[in-house]
Amino acid sequence: MTTLNVAIAGYGTIGSGVAHVISQHGEHPDAKINLVGILEKDTQGVFVRSMFEQNPELFYENSEQLLEDKQVDVIVETIGGKDFARELITNALQRGKHVITANKDLIAVHGSELTKIARKNGRHLLFEAAVAGAIPVLRLLKDYLQVRDIQGIQGILNGTTNYILSEMESNDLSFEKALSQAQELGFAEADPTNDIKGFDARYKLVILTYLITGQWLTPEQITLEGIDHLELADFEYAERMGRHIKLVANLRLIEKGAQVYVLPLMIKKDDMLAKISGSTNAVTLSGKFSEDITLIGKGAGSLPTASAIVSDLNKVLRHPEPFPPPPTTEKLEIEPLEDIRFRHTLRFEVRDHPGIFGHIGGIFERHSINIYALEQLPQYHRIGKEGEEIVIFTLTVQDCQEGLVLRALKEINQAEYMLKPVVLLREIV
Amino acid sequence: MTTLNVAIAGYGTIGSGVAHVISQHGEHPDAKINLVGILEKDTQGVFVRSMFEQNPELFYENSEQLLEDKQVDVIVETIGGKDFARELITNALQRGKHVITANKDLIAVHGSELTKIARKNGRHLLFEAAVAGAIPVLRLLKDYLQVRDIQGIQGILNGTTNYILSEMESNDLSFEKALSQAQELGFAEADPTNDIKGFDARYKLVILTYLITGQWLTPEQITLEGIDHLELADFEYAERMGRHIKLVANLRLIEKGAQVYVLPLMIKKDDMLAKISGSTNAVTLSGKFSEDITLIGKGAGSLPTASAIVSDLNKVLRHPEPFPPPPTTEKLEIEPLEDIRFRHTLRFEVRDHPGIFGHIGGIFERHSINIYALEQLPQYHRIGKEGEEIVIFTLTVQDCQEGLVLRALKEINQAEYMLKPVVLLREIV
Repeated sequence: MTTLNVAIAGYGTIGSGVAHVISQHGEHPDAKINLVGILEKDTQGVFVRSMFEQNPELFYENSEQLLEDKQVDVIVETIGGKDFARELITNALQRGKHVITANKDLIAVHGSELTKIARKNGRHLLFEAAVAGAIPVLRLLKDYLQVRDIQGIQGILNGTTNYILSEMESNDLSFEKALSQAQELGFAEADPTNDIKGFDARYKLVILTYLITGQWLTPEQITLEGIDHLELADFEYAERMGRHIKLVANLRLIEKGAQVYVLPLMIKKDDMLAKISGSTNAVTLSGKFSEDITLIGKGAGSLPTASAIVSDLNKVLRHPEPFPPPPTTEKLEIEPLEDIRFRHTLRFEVRDHPGIFGHIGGIFERHSINIYALEQLPQYHRIGKEGEEIVIFTLTVQDCQEGLVLRALKEINQAEYMLKPVVLLREIV
Repeated sequence: MTTLNVAIAGYGTIGSGVAHVISQHGEHPDAKINLVGILEKDTQGVFVRSMFEQNPELFYENSEQLLEDKQVDVIVETIGGKDFARELITNALQRGKHVITANKDLIAVHGSELTKIARKNGRHLLFEAAVAGAIPVLRLLKDYLQVRDIQGIQGILNGTTNYILSEMESNDLSFEKALSQAQELGFAEADPTNDIKGFDARYKLVILTYLITGQWLTPEQITLEGIDHLELADFEYAERMGRHIKLVANLRLIEKGAQVYVLPLMIKKDDMLAKISGSTNAVTLSGKFSEDITLIGKGAGSLPTASAIVSDLNKVLRHPEPFPPPPTTEKLEIEPLEDIRFRHTLRFEVRDHPGIFGHIGGIFERHSINIYALEQLPQYHRIGKEGEEIVIFTLTVQDCQEGLVLRALKEINQAEYMLKPVVLLREIV
């Protein structure tokens, strides 16, 4: 009988979920996972109280006591935050304990250092639960798909933003209304910055990029755009082009390096990622030999996350020797966004008067940009405060490098009729 | 450096694909897979000729020579068929060679016997490529999701039928037209029986059931209905109820055993499986703790299948000791279809005259079956050869056990106005 002694650090919604899933898994005949300790300062919290009343002997008084506990094989870190968690994980690894964490912010920022410490001490540092909750994407990447020569990954990695985008699209809600609805339903936090600005998705992409390339990028190396600048008009114009808008985290390996970004993208309705609605997450893996594989599931939630952590526990139980790090790409040069070809759709908001299309057309002509589609819908015509006519229209240009469009936009944005700078939406070509 | 010596038996589209993928994988620094032999009678075939010209020394003269080749660690069987392949696999395992196969018919029928032989001889018998081609569902099931207490699996496991159903639905093609179009495009074989009658999906479900429950069912134990009795009217009536029709292979573990069947089902348009179109495959796994996970990818094709085989090769390379068999459910009692509750939609084709609804309603009343919805569209009214009015309508009854509906149908089908027996479409409740 193999046994694994686990201590949980941080006994909130995830930590208590882990304890619950472990207790349900006690029946495996050939292997056993024991919960032997809990580190949680606030023993009166809603998730912890009954556990503390029934098993006070499980609770450590401080982290030093946990680290000194020789019977502990693995620490499950579900405290969150950076400094304390980082110190705890470092110390745990150095004292020969395996660590499992769902702390994506920490791993995205300090993964390079922490995985080195784990390797040096011959211990597992696993973080399946840090990316896309219930979807076993890390597991697949590490154990299985690496032999298939992954060429790229595209994911909807943030449930909050996907929920908001779905609501804007299906129910014609403004961004603000969709966000406050998401907050009411518990899909978005009181301070939604991390989600709507794309930071959360970017952290996850850092981790996925490491698993595919063996290289730790800093989050800032990844081009990022959130979704809070999108308007209903974007969805309506996209709809007329047969497209949905999704916040996509993308890594594509190219000959000279990689394209890597988190951007709201237009996606053909038939594509799998376009069909993902609500707070669901999805990841599409592209290989050299296999066709695309898409994995879909809920991205968050106490039990799915806890279940991912227990999967990692089972991994440690079955393979006490840590896995080798992912094969490392020699050098991961990131292609500047300006050099990447997209199909760009530009949303204009202008003070209407004759000659605007001629002016824009002239600028495009000078930059050798071809217009692919143009649409102006009557519902996006209104009279402004000073009696002027205001219209919102979109213009799609033929595939070209982003830099070319940016240069044209620099001129266009200076025109006196422009009420705000052009909003850019891209489609992968 | 770990090395693995591989012989391929059967060098057609899949076998040559395996050789191709292996040749691309030779660069792994710490492990190497060598192709050391090929068994193929017809050395002039389109896939084999150039290989034979360049490497004639790789070719065995007969299977005995292959089996005697001491350097061979693993045999990849891509011959297909039953008798020869079965004998080859049996002999290979008995002589201490691992075996990897994509032969789902063989595994579904003789898996019980062959896995026993493999276990007795301490060798791997792997068949990732036998189910859903590029989708790593077996791998996930075996290594990972078993710790999550899988409660059920639902899959679109046959690309041919899904292609036909998609075409009927989206392009209003009759079954016959959609089938011949699939044949022209190479999505269906000249003799499509195996696909359209559901046999292929059933074989795959036998294998999935083994992996989840440790029990080998015989294919005949699984209730089966194909798709060749479906008509355009079914799709139009389903559409009006917000449903798509998919051929679904389903296993659901229940307290007293399992529900297991392959049936065309009505599925809500919002459900992930309803969104799978064309020749794509998909599998949804349901766990106790994790929310549903859906995996989507191409089900067949030379390189995806070869890639799945090479994944299995890597598994053997990294874990030379065979994995333990899946945990075995004590007894797998299959719930009779009659006892399962569905929402049933009944398609009637009748010689119209006053009193039919009254007659049907009376029979339902006697059986305590409630009507949930009823629809008769004008486009399904026509004049028959003898001048009689013929209508096709559908009637959906409230959730109840299948047996109840069958008893009512026994009476209804005898009515003189019935032009053919009622066609039943089910929805999981």
